[in-house]
Order: sequence, then structure tokens, then C-alpha cells
Amino acid sequence: MSLNKQILIDSLPQDRLQESNYRLESGPVPEPSEGEVLCRTQVLMVAAGVRAGLQGSASYAGAPKTGIVMNGTGVARVEKSNDAGFAAGDLVVCNAGWQEYSIHRAGALSKVDNDVDPVHYLGALGTNGLTAYFGLLDVGRPAAGETVLVSAAAGSVGHLVGQMARIKGCTVVGITSTEEKCRLLTDRLGYHRSVSYRSADFRAELKEACPDGVDIYFDNTGGNILGMALRRMNNSSRIVCCGVVSQYDTGNPAGAPTGIPGLLVNKRIRMEGFLVFDYAAQYDNARKEIKSWINSGELNPLYDEFKGLESAPAAFVDLLAGGNLGTRIIRVADQD
Amino acid sequence: MSLNKQILIDSLPQDRLQESNYRLESGPVPEPSEGEVLCRTQVLMVAAGVRAGLQGSASYAGAPKTGIVMNGTGVARVEKSNDAGFAAGDLVVCNAGWQEYSIHRAGALSKVDNDVDPVHYLGALGTNGLTAYFGLLDVGRPAAGETVLVSAAAGSVGHLVGQMARIKGCTVVGITSTEEKCRLLTDRLGYHRSVSYRSADFRAELKEACPDGVDIYFDNTGGNILGMALRRMNNSSRIVCCGVVSQYDTGNPAGAPTGIPGLLVNKRIRMEGFLVFDYAAQYDNARKEIKSWINSGELNPLYDEFKGLESAPAAFVDLLAGGNLGTRIIRVADQD
Repeated sequence: MSLNKQILIDSLPQDRLQESNYRLESGPVPEPSEGEVLCRTQVLMVAAGVRAGLQGSASYAGAPKTGIVMNGTGVARVEKSNDAGFAAGDLVVCNAGWQEYSIHRAGALSKVDNDVDPVHYLGALGTNGLTAYFGLLDVGRPAAGETVLVSAAAGSVGHLVGQMARIKGCTVVGITSTEEKCRLLTDRLGYHRSVSYRSADFRAELKEACPDGVDIYFDNTGGNILGMALRRMNNSSRIVCCGVVSQYDTGNPAGAPTGIPGLLVNKRIRMEGFLVFDYAAQYDNARKEIKSWINSGELNPLYDEFKGLESAPAAFVDLLAGGNLGTRIIRVADQD
Repeated sequence: MSLNKQILIDSLPQDRLQESNYRLESGPVPEPSEGEVLCRTQVLMVAAGVRAGLQGSASYAGAPKTGIVMNGTGVARVEKSNDAGFAAGDLVVCNAGWQEYSIHRAGALSKVDNDVDPVHYLGALGTNGLTAYFGLLDVGRPAAGETVLVSAAAGSVGHLVGQMARIKGCTVVGITSTEEKCRLLTDRLGYHRSVSYRSADFRAELKEACPDGVDIYFDNTGGNILGMALRRMNNSSRIVCCGVVSQYDTGNPAGAPTGIPGLLVNKRIRMEGFLVFDYAAQYDNARKEIKSWINSGELNPLYDEFKGLESAPAAFVDLLAGGNLGTRIIRVADQD
């Protein structure tokens, strides 16, 4: 039988994550016990939020450890099932980890509908898409005509937030890193305006891009970008705290910007964090609406593909440096 | 006719406010025109939030200027009225400023009911009390059994927040400066526990005082105390951003603590600023409920009295250093 290639956490990063924090190993493919299912990974998603789990501090991803397989959500094909609910060949979403084969209790698997490309379950219909959906709609509560500002706007969550805000009738402004990404936002993703935070005139350009101020800032970054956005917020505006990518890839996360809480008081700003898992009971309804947008062509989810399990560490390091467009995925096995 | 003593802003504070930032002048008592009312100040309230108006930056109190009478809310007696709605002898609440006599359009005055001590209109029934009421109830949304933590807990707003939270069935913990104030909180104001932020063991004592974590943190201070409170917040908790007294009396306000926005995400914390003026349409109903608590003895508003207009600058400087218990007032004229 073939071997199971795995990528393990070799050491915890002290400052910026490096490929050398991981190591590749091979071992026997495990055998499923009664009630378990053996899955073969097809596609993995690489997500910035997982980086927080390597910092050793409070995170929903649990405590970091060396010597274990790196965690990651994937679409997998059932190879062998000892549970009546699954059969070889079924496609499922699972916490596959960075490895070719994984074993799961049947209750930890969810079958993938065959009416859309399964990769969407790692993007627009997966954690990223649901995060965009509930963060924007439930926490942000947009009204048509409002201005929605998104950071990491070409990223896995951000590129969906901007499109959903446009679908809801908002004016959408994106903050991203490069000129190329700025063009992508306006040319392909329907953002009305875009700004690069690397620009020497970022402050002035952001102001110009938001002539009516900002009603909802969807914050994927924290740090300085949050500080700049704060100064653009309207009275009674909302800051959706989704992630802090500026703070993940460092051993020494920065303090928050000045103006907190002073500006929150003067402008009656609501700043609210959320975790998508709290919305699990509403996933099915959300997926129905998101699928309808995909099928109508209103929503255009982007996937940014790397090939081969071995590419995962480099893909993750690059993602944390802002290299991705949309959801970054690793194609582990060709779908047969 | 007698002179009108006034205290003017002589210079804007560069760092900490000093008495020398003010000067005393005397001029003729002004004459009211048609539709105007001449008022004689009885009692003035001194409030920390007004300090922000001297910083030259964004504040709901408007831009600071030298050479004008210092602003302040007071209870005044109508001396002479050229408006049919008011008669000499009426008691009113108005933006009297730090002076003995002031002129107002009739529409800027509100008559004081005579069923409670008029001083309550500068405290529990005035801006402080309404701020405590709407901040706690509308922004914080307490449920019986929850833990409510209050900073500047013996202050003009804080001492009312703690009592209102107790009335609503919450466990109430106060943060204040001195041991004496700590005792006041638990002995006279019904706080369940109290902690001094000046204690060398503040962090550990705060943790011990909140064994079930914190569901609502009513933040009057910002800065380091906010940072400590953040670490005690429960999942789905709320931070009511009411004021930033730690930041007012300085030329160089500090950044926010680390953990913003990261902890807001992981713990799904809502952090929300508010200004009481937005609730003006609901003042009457709120005052009815607050009056009922005063009359039943459940609410015990504290007033911290200085005598004579000349004492106002010293009273304000001391207030910013945390010297007050409850609402600080200046008795300008004996009520005759």
C-alpha cells in the first residue's frame, strides 16, 4: 500500500513563520476502526487565521504543539468506510490536516453536495464564505447606500465580503497591498474603489476613496490599517473585527492604534468581534443564498492554487506576506 | 447692580490641566433682550468629559478657545425674564458656564420639577445619571446574574452605574483609586467587590474579584485599566465605552492596549461607544425610573460639594486626578 505523506510542525515560529518550521514525513496509511472513515485529501485550504494557533496564546484554534500534523480544512474522497453513512468515493469536507490520508469519526465529516464545484466548500461555501457572510450581514448590518471598507480586500475572506456588500447595494472600497491587486478589486470583483496601504499617500488616498466616510469597516488586519480606517468612520458606524493578519506573523503583536476607545465614544462606533462557528445552526440557509449568488454569476469566488502537498509551507508563508488572491488552496491529489 | 463674576479659559493646557489655565474676571450683569432670560447660577456641575474639549481635537464639546467663559451645566434661578414661559424665581437647568449670571434664549432652559432636590438634575437625573442609565441598559444590556465591572467606580457616572447594575440583579465589581474609595463602594453603594488600580497586585486582585469573568465592562477610563479589564472578559461580553478619563488630562494620549482587536475576535466581544445626547427623546421615561429608585432609597446618588465660584478650577483639577466621590458640584449662590 502507498505511504501517507504528512507535513508536521517541526518548531514554533519565534517571529515570522518560515518554511523550516515544518518538516515532511512519510508513514503507513492508517486503518480505520469500526465507525471510522479513511479519507484521501484532494484539496486543502490555507488560511491566515491558523497562524494565530502557532503563537502560544489564546486562540480558537487551540494550543500549538510541535510534532503534530499541521491542521487544515480540506475536501477529501472517502477511500474506505467502516460507517454505514459513507461509502468509498464520497466527497467530504473534513479537518484533513496537511497530509494525504486521514482517519475521522463519521460525525466529523460532512458530505459535499454535487450541484457546485466541491472547491467552493473551501471558499465561498466554506469557513471563508460563511465568515464573510455572517460578519458582514449579522455583525455589520449593512444598508443599501452605505459605504463598506474592507481590508485584506483581495484575500480569502475579503474578496467575498466586498462582493457581498456590492450585492447588498453598498458602495465598496477595498484596501490591499499592490497596484495589481487594486486593479483586480475594481476590474474583476466589483469594488467601486481600491487603495494600496503600501502607498506613500495611503492616508490621503483612503480619505479620497471614502468621500462619504465609512459606515462599516470589515477589519481583517488590525494594526495600522485599523488605525487609518478608524479616522474615516462615520457616526454610528460599525467595525467588524474578523481577523488580525497584521498581528499573526510576529512574535510581538503591536498595541492597538490611538483613538481606542476615545473615538468609539465620540463617534458612537460599535466594534465587534465574532467567530463564524457560533453561527453553525444558520450555515445551511447561508449556503443556499451564497449558492444562488454563485449560480447567478453575481458572486465570483477566486481560488489561488498551489500543486502538491509539499508546496503547503511555502504557500502559507507567502499567504501571510499577502501573496494570495482569493482563497489559497493546495491541490494534493488529482480528482479522479 | 452687582457684578458678574466669571471664570475664563486663560490658556489651553499643554499637558495636565492647572488652576493657572483659568482667570477670574468681573463685569456688569448682562441685560436680557426680548425672548431672553437672565439666570443666576445656584449650583454648577464639574465633569471630567469637559476636559476633552480643551485638547484641541475631535470632541462632542466643540473646539476649545481661550478668552471665553468655561462651559458647565448648572441649576440656576431665573432673575429676570423677557419670555412668557418663565418667571423670576423659577429654577432651571441650563448651560450656565462658570459664572454667576448668564443669559439664555427661553428654548435653552428646562424647568426643574419640584418633587426632588434640584441638585439631582446635575447628578442622577442629569447628564451623569442618564449616561449611566443608557450606557448600562441600552449599550450593555445586562441580564440578572451577570458580572458588571465599572471603572472610575466612585465617580460621577460610575457610582450610579454600579448601583443601577445592582438594582438590575447583577454582581457588581468596582475599580477605583484608593482604599477609602474601595470601602465606600462596598459599604455605601452596594458594590459586591472593589479593587484599587493603584495596588501593586491589581492584576491578581481584579482576577480574584471576578471569579466568573466579566460580562459587561463599563469603561470610564480607557488606557491600562481597559487593558486589564479586557483580559477578564467572557465570551460574548460587552465593553461600554463611556469615557476616557485616563486620556483627558494629558497632551499625549496613549495608544489602546494590546489585544485590540485580537481578543475582540477570539472572545466575540462587542465594544461600543455612545453619547447620551442621542437618547434625548427617551430622557423623560428614564428620569421617571431613576426618580422612583431615588424615592424608594434603592439609588443613593452622591454629591461632592465645593463652595464658591472661585473654587471651580481647583475642583476641576482635583477631579481629573480622581479626587471626587460621586458628582462634584460647586455651590455658587446659596439657594434663597
